[in-house]
Amino acid sequence: MQKKEKESNRGLTVNKEKNFSEWYSQIIEKTEILDTRLGIKGFVVIRPWGTKLIEKMYEFYEEELQKKGHEPTIMPSVIPEANLKKESGHIKGFTPEVFWLEKGKEEEKLALRPTSETLYTPMFKLWIRSHRDLPMKLYQRGSVFRYDTKATRPLIRGREFYWIETHNAFATKKEAESQVQEDIQTTENIMHQKFCIPFLPLKRPEWDKFAGAEYTIGSDVLMPDGKVIQQPSTHLMGQKFSKAFNAKFKNEKGQEKYLWTTAYGPAMSRILVSIISTHGDNRGLVLPFSISPIQIIIIPIFTAKDKNKILKYSQEIKEKLKDLRIKIDETEKRPGEKYYKWELKGVPFRLEIGKEELNNKELTIYIRDTHKKQKIKFNQLKNIPKLGKEFDNRLKKNAENFLKKNIVICKTKEQIKKTIKERKIAKTNWCSLDKNGLKCAEYVEKVTNAEIRGTFVNKKEKPTGKCVICNKPATAVVYIAKSY
Amino acid sequence: MQKKEKESNRGLTVNKEKNFSEWYSQIIEKTEILDTRLGIKGFVVIRPWGTKLIEKMYEFYEEELQKKGHEPTIMPSVIPEANLKKESGHIKGFTPEVFWLEKGKEEEKLALRPTSETLYTPMFKLWIRSHRDLPMKLYQRGSVFRYDTKATRPLIRGREFYWIETHNAFATKKEAESQVQEDIQTTENIMHQKFCIPFLPLKRPEWDKFAGAEYTIGSDVLMPDGKVIQQPSTHLMGQKFSKAFNAKFKNEKGQEKYLWTTAYGPAMSRILVSIISTHGDNRGLVLPFSISPIQIIIIPIFTAKDKNKILKYSQEIKEKLKDLRIKIDETEKRPGEKYYKWELKGVPFRLEIGKEELNNKELTIYIRDTHKKQKIKFNQLKNIPKLGKEFDNRLKKNAENFLKKNIVICKTKEQIKKTIKERKIAKTNWCSLDKNGLKCAEYVEKVTNAEIRGTFVNKKEKPTGKCVICNKPATAVVYIAKSY
Repeated sequence: MQKKEKESNRGLTVNKEKNFSEWYSQIIEKTEILDTRLGIKGFVVIRPWGTKLIEKMYEFYEEELQKKGHEPTIMPSVIPEANLKKESGHIKGFTPEVFWLEKGKEEEKLALRPTSETLYTPMFKLWIRSHRDLPMKLYQRGSVFRYDTKATRPLIRGREFYWIETHNAFATKKEAESQVQEDIQTTENIMHQKFCIPFLPLKRPEWDKFAGAEYTIGSDVLMPDGKVIQQPSTHLMGQKFSKAFNAKFKNEKGQEKYLWTTAYGPAMSRILVSIISTHGDNRGLVLPFSISPIQIIIIPIFTAKDKNKILKYSQEIKEKLKDLRIKIDETEKRPGEKYYKWELKGVPFRLEIGKEELNNKELTIYIRDTHKKQKIKFNQLKNIPKLGKEFDNRLKKNAENFLKKNIVICKTKEQIKKTIKERKIAKTNWCSLDKNGLKCAEYVEKVTNAEIRGTFVNKKEKPTGKCVICNKPATAVVYIAKSY
Repeated sequence: MQKKEKESNRGLTVNKEKNFSEWYSQIIEKTEILDTRLGIKGFVVIRPWGTKLIEKMYEFYEEELQKKGHEPTIMPSVIPEANLKKESGHIKGFTPEVFWLEKGKEEEKLALRPTSETLYTPMFKLWIRSHRDLPMKLYQRGSVFRYDTKATRPLIRGREFYWIETHNAFATKKEAESQVQEDIQTTENIMHQKFCIPFLPLKRPEWDKFAGAEYTIGSDVLMPDGKVIQQPSTHLMGQKFSKAFNAKFKNEKGQEKYLWTTAYGPAMSRILVSIISTHGDNRGLVLPFSISPIQIIIIPIFTAKDKNKILKYSQEIKEKLKDLRIKIDETEKRPGEKYYKWELKGVPFRLEIGKEELNNKELTIYIRDTHKKQKIKFNQLKNIPKLGKEFDNRLKKNAENFLKKNIVICKTKEQIKKTIKERKIAKTNWCSLDKNGLKCAEYVEKVTNAEIRGTFVNKKEKPTGKCVICNKPATAVVYIAKSY
């Protein structure tokens, strides 16, 4: 029993740079983000610290989506087989990944939803009659299920994940494409600006788009081990689903037209992977001030004699900062143990309140990312939100630098091989992103295990010369990386 | 097409008092709370108006639970067969109601969770070592699934519903029982005080408790048709689950003891039924000011000439009330259509802003529940939150009166029959709430279709004389009603 206690209280025992994989396995459990010990393949238990983080992330995303005119809905967690099979590309892509329910007597076969196009499109058909009902921009928060037969990893690759999916209908392709652009901006506003995670918005090659989409724009985030992880992607479904479900509207001239639809899918549980991995260090999590469940932890340091005074002063400080997420750790542990615990959990600021601080009407603030301490006067407490912004700016800047320095322009096959081997992203001229380029992509995958992740959106990166693999004239500049 | 439009725009065509069942079917669809047309038995689509209501309800509940020390978690949506079968009473009660997933190769059989005792208890076993880890009070928001083979009704009886479930572990039975009491208080604080729905907290008879519990306290709410609907119930699980999962802790003397556990389950989708049914009238929903997605709708009434001025004045009013959920309806419909729409949707206050209001720097407020209009001066706008409180107090008072006048003290079998026939709740002396009383309960059910709902908690209602059915000495005062 005692051994068990000691072990779980121990901090990280590996170095993030040296063994990222083990570091990740340790940090998610030791900081009490989640627990895998229930032992259901692909399913985890999210503990309070992780749940509060995810809730905060949902809050930012939902606020942003509502601001942009998306309305919340709740769809069934199940999809009838007939719906799922309506769009041929979709079902081909998703069938192997579907959890089916055992069929009830005389009832239709149901799948756990892997994504909800085939629930929203039939409702668009019922809800939308004319151009006056458009655009219709909806979303839901909830979980989706994929029967992944590959190895699962907590939050990275699982069988149930927690996301938002928006589903939107428009009168024209142009409006639908504007929505795709707006989605990229949403990823920028939230994932980059609030969660401090920079990303590459990449239009996926033809062979790597969402099953049923015209095109897909993914956001790739670089992990410390040099692999990228796909974060929110947005899809122009075009009229594929509206045709499959016969979902039409009457335009201004009274003509019946098929709807244009899009979908966007930020997964909180997966973005959390990037937050943990990008900002964390060898002492534990480093959480952005914007989303940390506790932004400031107060540690009172007292003897029996000055206990009351110091607790009272701590309360005063807490009251002064009550608009922030602040907590006093009044447990009976030693201050050192408390420092250690909240560092592990990634709380941005620790306020140490002892005799000296009390006497000087000041406090000592420890900054989680820089590990520096400084004194602040009580009447300067109003500066803490500003320090919070600076904190997040540092996290962002560091992550941006990391991404930037790990993109290498490659002009030969050898350079690509070397770049991937060095755990970096290769950027290179490429023949084609439609099926004509697949052969070159397969070659790259064979020799490097890396994939063609796509072309940078909204940044005109002009190809020059020839494809590094087949020597045909280049039509695109692509990013190549190993991926999760 | 035009016919379809007209029909769906039409309001309620039945009278709530005369045909409640049809009124309910119409109101949930016509006010755009939900849509059943996806056609999956027991599953509905919750539309934006319904989703925003449910989100607001979650917000109140989660805030209250967190204030009382419950921490949020996210559990898998699935439960391994072995877990589900650990507690014999539990599995006996739930097996017929479980959705099973088709089994993957060499993987264990999984059920969609019908409730999560068998996920939380094994985690308690891992997370709790000593009395210092107690109490542990957790909860999750999410959906659960029950394969109900009976007729389903939207939100009332479905196969997926949206709830919160708390799961809590304690060192002693006494503390566990205090939690049960705290849960009843939570129901009172939120469902009654915030959502304006009074209830009877009833300890269920032995034969009607939660599968696996020592005892269950349900909250019965009276519907307009005289049937009760069970709302949040709280369960003393005792040591049944901790024994099944061998979940122990070390007490202060170092002895290993089984945990005492409780669970509490407020279902937002079901409480919404009571909100709709209790407060609604023949013009549509009447939503409590506390949870209405829009608390105040502004309807500007203008001619081409004064349009700008009136819109500007409307904006000024909105700005003044920006801490409330307020919206200006600037669509191109006629004012009458707008009045009609927002009355149907149950918005508490409508502000009519026309030329007269502009000139007199005032506004006309229409109050949804009383249908009365009054003028308010612009500089009296600060009184609106007070009017909102009064609004909710009226709803609450009306509902309380309805419940009170529909409880009839019965001294004979005939009176019980008559009371139930008149769609009321019978209150009467009763022989026994353990298995000895089951025969009398079965008799009552046979002749009236009503059930023994239990005894009033925390109110010492002393039985006098004999059981009205079997004439044995009475040991309890019970409430009898038909139920959903």
